[in-house]
Amino acid sequence: KVHRIVCIPGDGIGVDITDAAIKVLTTLSKTLGGFEFDFTTLDWSSKNYVQRGWYMPPDGLAQLKRYDAIYFGAVGWPDVPDHISLWGLILPIRKTLNQYVNVRPTRILEGTKSPLADCKREDLDWMIIRENSEGEYSGQGGTSHEGSPHTIATEISIFTRAGTERIMRFAFDTARSRPRKKLTMVTKSNAQRHGMVLWDTIFYEVAKEYEDVEIDKMLVDAMTVRMVLNPKSLDTIVATNLHADILSDLAAALSGSIGIAPSSNLDPTRANPSMFEPIHGSAPDIAGKGIANPVGAFWSAAEMVRWVGEEKAADALMKAVENVTARGTKTKDLGGSEGTEGVTDAVCAEIETL
Amino acid sequence: KVHRIVCIPGDGIGVDITDAAIKVLTTLSKTLGGFEFDFTTLDWSSKNYVQRGWYMPPDGLAQLKRYDAIYFGAVGWPDVPDHISLWGLILPIRKTLNQYVNVRPTRILEGTKSPLADCKREDLDWMIIRENSEGEYSGQGGTSHEGSPHTIATEISIFTRAGTERIMRFAFDTARSRPRKKLTMVTKSNAQRHGMVLWDTIFYEVAKEYEDVEIDKMLVDAMTVRMVLNPKSLDTIVATNLHADILSDLAAALSGSIGIAPSSNLDPTRANPSMFEPIHGSAPDIAGKGIANPVGAFWSAAEMVRWVGEEKAADALMKAVENVTARGTKTKDLGGSEGTEGVTDAVCAEIETL
Ligand SMILES: CC(C)[C@H](C(=O)O)[C@@H](O)C(=O)O
Ligand SMILES: CC(C)[C@H](C(=O)O)[C@@H](O)C(=O)O
Repeated sequence: KVHRIVCIPGDGIGVDITDAAIKVLTTLSKTLGGFEFDFTTLDWSSKNYVQRGWYMPPDGLAQLKRYDAIYFGAVGWPDVPDHISLWGLILPIRKTLNQYVNVRPTRILEGTKSPLADCKREDLDWMIIRENSEGEYSGQGGTSHEGSPHTIATEISIFTRAGTERIMRFAFDTARSRPRKKLTMVTKSNAQRHGMVLWDTIFYEVAKEYEDVEIDKMLVDAMTVRMVLNPKSLDTIVATNLHADILSDLAAALSGSIGIAPSSNLDPTRANPSMFEPIHGSAPDIAGKGIANPVGAFWSAAEMVRWVGEEKAADALMKAVENVTARGTKTKDLGGSEGTEGVTDAVCAEIETL
Repeated sequence: KVHRIVCIPGDGIGVDITDAAIKVLTTLSKTLGGFEFDFTTLDWSSKNYVQRGWYMPPDGLAQLKRYDAIYFGAVGWPDVPDHISLWGLILPIRKTLNQYVNVRPTRILEGTKSPLADCKREDLDWMIIRENSEGEYSGQGGTSHEGSPHTIATEISIFTRAGTERIMRFAFDTARSRPRKKLTMVTKSNAQRHGMVLWDTIFYEVAKEYEDVEIDKMLVDAMTVRMVLNPKSLDTIVATNLHADILSDLAAALSGSIGIAPSSNLDPTRANPSMFEPIHGSAPDIAGKGIANPVGAFWSAAEMVRWVGEEKAADALMKAVENVTARGTKTKDLGGSEGTEGVTDAVCAEIETL
C-alpha cells in the first residue's frame, strides 16, 4: 500500500524537522514493510514569496487535494509580516480543506519532565480539541480611517451553530474514547456574551447525547490556573480557535517543551486530506543550526501515519521516540545535548531494532 | 485627611475578603495616623439582583463618582448567568468611569513559592498592563437566526488608535519607572490581521518616544511558554483586554496562587475614581467558609492606598503582609493552614508593631 504524502517544509526549522520526519518515516516503512510513503515536497515558503510574490500557486489548494495527507513544517520569516505569511499559506489550507478539528495531545514523554515541581509524568495527559475553522480566526474585520487619529480596527469572531456542534461532537467522541471519559469545555462567556454563550449552550445540548462523559466548564483565564496547579484534574479539553491555540502552547510548555508537541488538522469527513504539523513555529533564531528538536515533528508524523490507517506503525514510531528520550538522547530544550541529527539517527536505529 | 472609599463586596468570597480588607485598612490608618478612611458599603450583588432585578440603581455610576476610590470584592453567582452579572456590574464600572488601564503586578511573596521547580523568588517580578476599555470586551456583536440550525453569533473586538496609544504610553511609562526598563508587547497579529496589526504598529510608533526602554514583541501563545520556561526574561508586559486577562491569571498561578494577585482599574486622568479588586473571582465553592485567601485583597487595598496618595501606608501594608506570609501564616492555597481571619488578624497585629 502506497500513501501519497505532500510535504510543505516552509520556513526556518520547518525545513530541518521535515527532513528529519521524512528520514524517520522512510526507515519506518522500510523496516516494518507492507506499506510505503510516496513523498512530494513543495517549495512554498517565505523565501520564495519574497522572490515571486506568492506562497501557493493559484491551483495550490487543488494540488493538495490529490494527496492522502499533508505534512507541514512551519511558516513565518522576519522578511514577511506574519499575517501575510499565515494567511498566504497555513490558514487557507486549514480552512479550505475543511480541516475543522485541530487535535493537540499533550503528555510528558519518557525520560523528560515537567517544569512544574509537583507534576509527575502520569499527572499530565491531556487531549486538546481545537476548533480550527472559525471563531477568532474568521479573518473578518477591517480598518477604517487608516492613518488618521481616528483609526479604528475590528476583529470579528464568528461562531456558527453548525461549526460549534461538529467540534463538540468530535470532542465528546474523543473524550468517550479515552479511559477517563472527562471533557472540559473552555469559553469566556462571562465577558463575551454572544458567540461564547452560543458555545456554552451547544455544549450542554450535545452533552445530553453523551451521558457517559463527565463534563465541566471553565473560563479560559481560570483554565490556565487549573492547568498549572491541578493538571491531574484534566483529560479532554475543547476550546475555540484562539483559546485552544493559547492553551495548547501552555500545555506544551508544562509538558516540558514546545518542541515536542504535535498537531493534527483533521477533516473528519475525509473528503479532503488532513494536515499534520508540530505546533512550534519556524524559530528563526535557531533555524539551520541543526539543533531543533525533531520530536514534535516525529509525533506529528506518527499521528499522520495513524490517520492513513497504519496504526501499528504509528505505535512503533512513538515507542521508538520514547525509547530514545528515555535513554537521554534529547535536544537542549529537553535538557539533553544532542542535535536534530543525533536524535533523528537514534530514532531510526531504534525503529530498526523494534 | 479623609479618603472616601466606596466598597462593593459583591458575591461569594468577595464579601469575606472585603470585610478583611476594611479591617486591615482601619488598623492601618489608626496605627499610622495622619489620614482616615470613610467607608461606604453598597449591597450590589447577585443575591439582590435575583430579588430586585438590578445590580446597580439607575444612578449607580453617578453615585460612585462621589468617592475617592472604589474597592471591589468579586461578582458572579450560580443563580445568574455570568454575562448578566458581569455586564450588570463590573464591566460598566470599568468602562463608564474611564478606567482604561488595569495594572496587575505579579511577584512571589516572601515565604511563598512558585509551582515551577526552577523559579526562584527573584526570577518572577512582572508588571502586566492590561487594556481595560475596548478590544475583546467591547460588548459588540450579536446573534442571528437564534434557535435555528443556522444560528450565527459574532463577537466584535474594537481597537482604536486613541485607545491603543494611551495604553501603550502608560505601559512605556511603567516600564521606564522600573529598574530593568523592559517592555514586552503581546498580540496575535499573525492570525488576527486588523486590530492586532494596529496594536503592533502603534507600539513601534510610541516606542520611538521611549528610547531608554528595551522592547520586544510576543505572540500570545508563545508568551505562555516564555512565562513558564523563562520567567526571568520578562519585566513589564502590555497586552489586550482578553490576552492580559488570560496571562495575568497564568502569572498569578506561576507566582503561587490566584489568591494573592491584585488589580487596579485606573483612570489615569483622575477625572473618575479608580477601582481596586483582587483578580480572583467569587469562588462559590469556598464562599462563607472562612478559608478565602485575603492576601490579594490586601495587596489590592495597598494599591488603592498608594493611589489616593498614602505611599508610606501602602508600603507598610505590603511589608506587614509579607512579614506574615514569611512566618508561614498562610491559607491552604499557599500551603498554610490558616483561615481568612487568622491571616487578617496576623496582618493587623503586624501593622501595629511596624
Ligand atoms: C502559525 C499560527 C497561525 C498558528 C495558529 O495560531 O494557529 C500556530 O500558533 C499554531 O498553533 O498552529
Ligand atoms: C470577572 C471578569 C469580567 C474579569 C475579566 O475577565 O476581566 C476577571 O476575570 C478579571 O480578570 O478581572
